[in-house]
Amino acid sequence: LMKKKIALDMDEVIVNIYNRFITLYEEQYEITPNPEDYAGRKFYDLKGAGNYREFLFEPGFFADLPIFEGAAEVINWLNNHFDLFIVTAAQEFPNSLIDKYYWLQKYLPFISWKQYVFCGDKSIINADYMIDDHVHNLATFKGVGLLFTAPHNINEKGYIRLNNWNEVKLFFELELSKKEV
Amino acid sequence: LMKKKIALDMDEVIVNIYNRFITLYEEQYEITPNPEDYAGRKFYDLKGAGNYREFLFEPGFFADLPIFEGAAEVINWLNNHFDLFIVTAAQEFPNSLIDKYYWLQKYLPFISWKQYVFCGDKSIINADYMIDDHVHNLATFKGVGLLFTAPHNINEKGYIRLNNWNEVKLFFELELSKKEV
Repeated sequence: LMKKKIALDMDEVIVNIYNRFITLYEEQYEITPNPEDYAGRKFYDLKGAGNYREFLFEPGFFADLPIFEGAAEVINWLNNHFDLFIVTAAQEFPNSLIDKYYWLQKYLPFISWKQYVFCGDKSIINADYMIDDHVHNLATFKGVGLLFTAPHNINEKGYIRLNNWNEVKLFFELELSKKEV
Repeated sequence: LMKKKIALDMDEVIVNIYNRFITLYEEQYEITPNPEDYAGRKFYDLKGAGNYREFLFEPGFFADLPIFEGAAEVINWLNNHFDLFIVTAAQEFPNSLIDKYYWLQKYLPFISWKQYVFCGDKSIINADYMIDDHVHNLATFKGVGLLFTAPHNINEKGYIRLNNWNEVKLFFELELSKKEV
């Protein structure tokens, strides 16, 4: 039996980038940004954070970002039941390529480099499921698109929404049980 | 009208790696290897070149390899008529990631980073055509697989074979003319 393919995004799905942006903001302004002020928008739209996107181009920025709670355990489980690929739009930030490679080796050592895909445009990806926080990636995808909740996408509609890694596990447990019927 | 997608391999299709291996061999042994001695096999099978695969892990190895004759012109033409992606199995050699990024920027400046795909296993790729020198990449591909001739694959059968960049252009001119009928 062929396992079904999952294309799993990295930033804001496995890797918590907002956490680092918030820390940088707190260090710069000595206040914690109000989550309502970046909900449904980009963090860069926040007053005083207009240039924060430039951090993404710096060597090392992606090297040691925190992993979301539950992600490693559920990804390990997914990896045993599905044909899993980590698909990340890394090419816009060339210095992120090597950082992301070693981040994956460190935080998800049970995933092989054969399962990494670093691309610019996800319309080239062939899989049964795509888990992503960006609707533009899901829009060109021919399989089942799953929107992973991030502050910027809370107002998006039209996709199955998974709010956290418990919900990712629940969704795919249900998919596996369907196949057994 | 949607353009058809092409997944175009990099090593031994755009980039001439054998050329560098031969130079390294000449420098080490002061003889030119006989092409018959690595035809239909890996270059590493050549006597005295058993460890040459280790060069691929070195930073900078992929940074300045020569481009095949005619490749840049035909890729520019393909890019105007098809939805082109450069799909390279880079992840096995982590230091190649940044080298390949800047190589592409230098030698194919008309191709956007959005069109680069650095992966480990090409079974995740969705396209209408794949041009590759490795039959194992073509074997899992659902579209039209095109085998680009390299010394190691000269005995492979079962795929449309393109021997050089003139033949790539000819093949795709014929594909375009078919669509117009």
